[in-house]
Amino acid sequence: MPDVSPTKWHLAHTTWFFETFILKKFSPGYRSEIPQYAYLFNSYYNAAGDMHRRDLRGLISRPTVGEAQRYRASIDSHIDNLLSGADERLLDEIEPIVVLGIHHEQQHQELLVTDIKHVFAQNPLYPVFRGEARHSVRAEERTATECHPYHFIEFDEEIVEIGYDGRGFAYDNEGPRHRALVPAFRLATRPVTNGEYMAFIEDNGYARPEFWLSLGWMTVNDQRWQAPLYWTKHEGAWWNFTLSGFRPVDESEPVTHLSYFEADAYANWAGARLPTEFEWERAALHCPIEGNFVDDEKFHPRSLATSEKDGRLHQMFGDVWEWTRSAYSPYPGYRAAPGALGEYNGKFMCNQYVLRGGSCATSRSHIRRTYRNFFQPEKRWQFTGIRLARDPQ
Amino acid sequence: MPDVSPTKWHLAHTTWFFETFILKKFSPGYRSEIPQYAYLFNSYYNAAGDMHRRDLRGLISRPTVGEAQRYRASIDSHIDNLLSGADERLLDEIEPIVVLGIHHEQQHQELLVTDIKHVFAQNPLYPVFRGEARHSVRAEERTATECHPYHFIEFDEEIVEIGYDGRGFAYDNEGPRHRALVPAFRLATRPVTNGEYMAFIEDNGYARPEFWLSLGWMTVNDQRWQAPLYWTKHEGAWWNFTLSGFRPVDESEPVTHLSYFEADAYANWAGARLPTEFEWERAALHCPIEGNFVDDEKFHPRSLATSEKDGRLHQMFGDVWEWTRSAYSPYPGYRAAPGALGEYNGKFMCNQYVLRGGSCATSRSHIRRTYRNFFQPEKRWQFTGIRLARDPQ
Amino acid sequence: MPDVSPTKWHLAHTTWFFETFILKKFSPGYRSEIPQYAYLFNSYYNAAGDMHRRDLRGLISRPTVGEAQRYRASIDSHIDNLLSGADERLLDEIEPIVVLGIHHEQQHQELLVTDIKHVFAQNPLYPVFRGEARHSVRAEERTATECHPYHFIEFDEEIVEIGYDGRGFAYDNEGPRHRALVPAFRLATRPVTNGEYMAFIEDNGYARPEFWLSLGWMTVNDQRWQAPLYWTKHEGAWWNFTLSGFRPVDESEPVTHLSYFEADAYANWAGARLPTEFEWERAALHCPIEGNFVDDEKFHPRSLATSEKDGRLHQMFGDVWEWTRSAYSPYPGYRAAPGALGEYNGKFMCNQYVLRGGSCATSRSHIRRTYRNFFQPEKRWQFTGIRLARDPQ
Amino acid sequence: MPDVSPTKWHLAHTTWFFETFILKKFSPGYRSEIPQYAYLFNSYYNAAGDMHRRDLRGLISRPTVGEAQRYRASIDSHIDNLLSGADERLLDEIEPIVVLGIHHEQQHQELLVTDIKHVFAQNPLYPVFRGEARHSVRAEERTATECHPYHFIEFDEEIVEIGYDGRGFAYDNEGPRHRALVPAFRLATRPVTNGEYMAFIEDNGYARPEFWLSLGWMTVNDQRWQAPLYWTKHEGAWWNFTLSGFRPVDESEPVTHLSYFEADAYANWAGARLPTEFEWERAALHCPIEGNFVDDEKFHPRSLATSEKDGRLHQMFGDVWEWTRSAYSPYPGYRAAPGALGEYNGKFMCNQYVLRGGSCATSRSHIRRTYRNFFQPEKRWQFTGIRLARDPQ
Repeated sequence: MPDVSPTKWHLAHTTWFFETFILKKFSPGYRSEIPQYAYLFNSYYNAAGDMHRRDLRGLISRPTVGEAQRYRASIDSHIDNLLSGADERLLDEIEPIVVLGIHHEQQHQELLVTDIKHVFAQNPLYPVFRGEARHSVRAEERTATECHPYHFIEFDEEIVEIGYDGRGFAYDNEGPRHRALVPAFRLATRPVTNGEYMAFIEDNGYARPEFWLSLGWMTVNDQRWQAPLYWTKHEGAWWNFTLSGFRPVDESEPVTHLSYFEADAYANWAGARLPTEFEWERAALHCPIEGNFVDDEKFHPRSLATSEKDGRLHQMFGDVWEWTRSAYSPYPGYRAAPGALGEYNGKFMCNQYVLRGGSCATSRSHIRRTYRNFFQPEKRWQFTGIRLARDPQ
Repeated sequence: MPDVSPTKWHLAHTTWFFETFILKKFSPGYRSEIPQYAYLFNSYYNAAGDMHRRDLRGLISRPTVGEAQRYRASIDSHIDNLLSGADERLLDEIEPIVVLGIHHEQQHQELLVTDIKHVFAQNPLYPVFRGEARHSVRAEERTATECHPYHFIEFDEEIVEIGYDGRGFAYDNEGPRHRALVPAFRLATRPVTNGEYMAFIEDNGYARPEFWLSLGWMTVNDQRWQAPLYWTKHEGAWWNFTLSGFRPVDESEPVTHLSYFEADAYANWAGARLPTEFEWERAALHCPIEGNFVDDEKFHPRSLATSEKDGRLHQMFGDVWEWTRSAYSPYPGYRAAPGALGEYNGKFMCNQYVLRGGSCATSRSHIRRTYRNFFQPEKRWQFTGIRLARDPQ
Repeated sequence: MPDVSPTKWHLAHTTWFFETFILKKFSPGYRSEIPQYAYLFNSYYNAAGDMHRRDLRGLISRPTVGEAQRYRASIDSHIDNLLSGADERLLDEIEPIVVLGIHHEQQHQELLVTDIKHVFAQNPLYPVFRGEARHSVRAEERTATECHPYHFIEFDEEIVEIGYDGRGFAYDNEGPRHRALVPAFRLATRPVTNGEYMAFIEDNGYARPEFWLSLGWMTVNDQRWQAPLYWTKHEGAWWNFTLSGFRPVDESEPVTHLSYFEADAYANWAGARLPTEFEWERAALHCPIEGNFVDDEKFHPRSLATSEKDGRLHQMFGDVWEWTRSAYSPYPGYRAAPGALGEYNGKFMCNQYVLRGGSCATSRSHIRRTYRNFFQPEKRWQFTGIRLARDPQ
Repeated sequence: MPDVSPTKWHLAHTTWFFETFILKKFSPGYRSEIPQYAYLFNSYYNAAGDMHRRDLRGLISRPTVGEAQRYRASIDSHIDNLLSGADERLLDEIEPIVVLGIHHEQQHQELLVTDIKHVFAQNPLYPVFRGEARHSVRAEERTATECHPYHFIEFDEEIVEIGYDGRGFAYDNEGPRHRALVPAFRLATRPVTNGEYMAFIEDNGYARPEFWLSLGWMTVNDQRWQAPLYWTKHEGAWWNFTLSGFRPVDESEPVTHLSYFEADAYANWAGARLPTEFEWERAALHCPIEGNFVDDEKFHPRSLATSEKDGRLHQMFGDVWEWTRSAYSPYPGYRAAPGALGEYNGKFMCNQYVLRGGSCATSRSHIRRTYRNFFQPEKRWQFTGIRLARDPQ
């Protein structure tokens, strides 16, 4: 899978970020010990020079893990020295890039988790990252935990402020803050569960073109998708490959590892639709940022079995990223910054869809109400799920 | 090119549309003479049954052109009989489908023109569709005709009504009509010319990643694009393959046969951006529907040399389709119709961009202010061009 | 299928051969009417200039069939004039190329037949080239005609003369004539029949890797082959697409449209092997050149039901090409001629296998005992079959 | 490169061979500790069960190197126990498989060396396997060492015995021993050098189709080959990536890392041809088995500068594998053994060419006069070179 990179690459690439955008710019006399790393560990910044082919990252046996760690230690130490010796003015200049570098590293921590999961799932040994794998399950465990059914909360048409409000850190794609007319809509109280998604599968959802986008239908047929990524049917029951090995699918958990195509087809089947990102952001305004995050080291979304039937939105943050029906595009007035750091976001605004809310692989301090994640509609290796919306009755 | 179909296929497919959606449904006792045509000439309607692979259309030597014409004559005659024998109630039921079939046929007339152009351009004999080819040109002819420079017209923030207003025919994707907040913007008085686009090429625009979307940059490099489709450099001058054969590029004409990627890169280079489809629709409200259409049988956009410097929007309709920065997505409240005719538009709302205004291959009676055309961002074989927009000063 | 060319291309290409290698060389003052034809209709002669891509031949809508026929008539008339005005010396020089051009044309007549068959078979209308298609068959017709079983004729080790003996025309790849030691072997009295091949299919031959070459096994799985090309199972019975439309598979006919991989796997399954081309040539020494040829306009191999049980080799010529286990390679002392005509044979001596004896699409006057046909081991669109050999007991 | 496997895979695969073909068959009660290894480390033995995709071997992060070494130690110890406890009769049965396993391992030792070289060459860090890399060279070192020119030794037509004579070990593809008529030929006294190959490059050999097989010409153009694998032009001089890093090309060494296509094109350019494998085997009859082998740990072919001008064949063994023009095919009377071990050789007898003599990565005790190595004609990552032959004058 060309999207997936080795763990040591993530380590070296986040290190390269600090070396390239801080040390090389602000540390006079700094010289790379191994200049070729600049080529190997540049991910996509054209303005920062040539780069190694993404799909070949898995083939690089050198530097070894140890060498990548030494590279990290060396750059960390240079950064420490630079910061401790810097005057106020230099610090002012460096600070936003250090902060960006840390947020950048949080993004790669998330990818590191999902990439390990993907690589392990391809391995016929099915290695276990954390915890204990199980190769069988007692019948009584298979009993689905009951969830309260979701219902829809109504929102009236309103002109709302969208985007970064200036407090704390945000990526450039979250601004400029602007007014948008959001028509009336309804939003489901919680994400769709595995159990609910199974009903779609059992209703032959993957074989009925009427639910699918044209491109989704091609993809389903080309890729022979029949279930979410990591699900396998074994002796009549669905099993789920997780970072703790195989487990029976828990019907009360949010369904995850779905493409946009599957999320959209499911919504059509359910007589609903996906929310726009503006609907989501508006609805999230008063929701608490709580859920499973990578900090919790569960690497798995929380069950919905415990969420009460209390008429509010549950699990808007953490657990699973929620696909929106909004194509990833610039907000009115958006201009990418000049130079390499301007390549962070803007140049990807084509043929991708916005996801909101974060997942169990996201850092808690990384997520915000205005945060815009984005992936191509066929991607499934992130913890991605569904929250339904509807037009007003 | 898998997008391009043979002329006889277009003829048979538009015929099949009437046979499938009218005769088979409303003409009791109607039986296809050649039932396999249903398989061969279904383009993409899953609900209407299996279909032949699009990329193999060019390989079908049977039916011959003559047989396709006989098929057409036969269906025409059946439709005539059905309509002349129909009572008021039946006519009410059939009418919207006949009207849809006629608009569908207008779309295929446009494709027929662009497909012939594409096929001829691949042929080393460079056949001429209409008029006289020229293999040389006198030096004085190369002199660029002067155009008045474009400037930008300002529009204030406003809540506008978007979409089909209920008068005359419209496709389902033009509704529901709804209110949208359109922030203030500026729109160029006319499309970008060939001469202006040459300046981008000469400024090395195709080799500078800073202007391009990431996906566009990959495409430019994979496809080795260096100029609009159909342009060739010969002895230092740009030539243009047209339906009248090769001609020197006329600097006063609107640039055309550009992908979205090129339109977007040009706009970035020019310090501007593409308009959204709502900006375009709002600005078009009072513009006359005039320009070169397929009815004029020029198969070529009008020059901009004659357009006066009068502060209004020129050539919003006809000549070249104008790329917008809006991803093709459903309007609030949109639901596709059930059944095969519901596959007309909605299922393509993914990874495509909206174009507005029509081109010299479009029928005059086919275009509207609310008309939403859409193509993938890498497509270039339609008459597609650029009108610039800017954020307010 | 990139191997298949349109009929008009074959017509124009064989015409181009005469134009390029005779008129342009020997007719002073000859000028092409349409010089671009040299590019369009050169198949693979690098020394004769650039050429059009083979896989795009199907997309060339110009020249039309009529124009190709006019091209042919024009070149024919020029050749006539050249020959009638030529003196003895010029005739001596031209004659071998005219003869080569005629044999070249016979090869393309064969391809023309097999290409039409292939194109028709892809067409869901299943057009009929000659005769009457049948969509059903009476039960009694399905009864297999009995064939006498084949047996093996023994040949002792011998040093034999291999290759062209200097009488009549031959291609350069049939020489130089040379001595070869052919170890003792046994050869089957007749080709393998459809009925015998069905037994291999029913014994699960396409799903058992032990019979297949490694490359064959990959191909079978990639292509999902389950039977010879053009066979389809319908209501429990095998049907065969022929140039007269669909017919029930006749068990007494030689099996045909097999790849080398299938021929080799069948032989392994049958406890036999394919013959070498030297074994075949030695055995064919006294066999009459009789069978179905294209001259007979059957476009179908003869049944084996009538061949007597008389201990001689049957149907060595015509009907189906017989795969040998010999890779296509140069005979000792072979050197390709210089210039474009030297590209006729030698440069293809890699990754192809030799076939012997001609088929029902071959001209009777085209075939010889020393004739070496050759195709890649995965090709199936020619009339190719199997004759078994064995090592001595 | 799908042909290349990670080092730990080679280690585990050769271990699997002993486990599968000895322990599982002859050690009652033996049970695999990790049964999935059977799937991961089966290379191509269909009869030994399903197998992991070759091109994904590089992506398997588990088992780790340490786990592969533990697997090896465990199997070694089981084999030791089995052998020390075996009676005469069991030893007789096991011995040929142990011997085959050792030869199998020698083959993988060779691949391990060439695979490391290939992986290192793709790495922009250009790691050094052994010795010291050099990034510059003094001008005087670039001076080519003079080699004595090669000349051709004549051989008369003769009937010779080809193949394994029954002494020591041989693979099944080296038999049965049989008589073959080898026409008169001439063979060059030594391999072609880098210096001689440079003359071909400088004479534009890679751009002149008249020297190339048709398939070779396609490959050269697709792959954009301009020199042997691992050669790079830097500041006007050719450099060679070796297992000791980059070095200037030494003109006196045998040229290596060539495809069959390049070897054949070079021979055509030189007015010669490649030898057949029978010519080579006959000529090698009295040649000593001496040269650089992997045992010498040079990982580089010997220079030809020191070979005397003494009219005998030099460096027939070791240093570089010599391409022959013989397609890899079965000897008369060859039958593969039944079962999985029968898949060792026979099923690859298609679209490959025979190489003879061994290379600097081959074990000395692995090579024989009758040894038949084989690769596809486009492969270049082995140490492959050229010895010229000619027809008699």
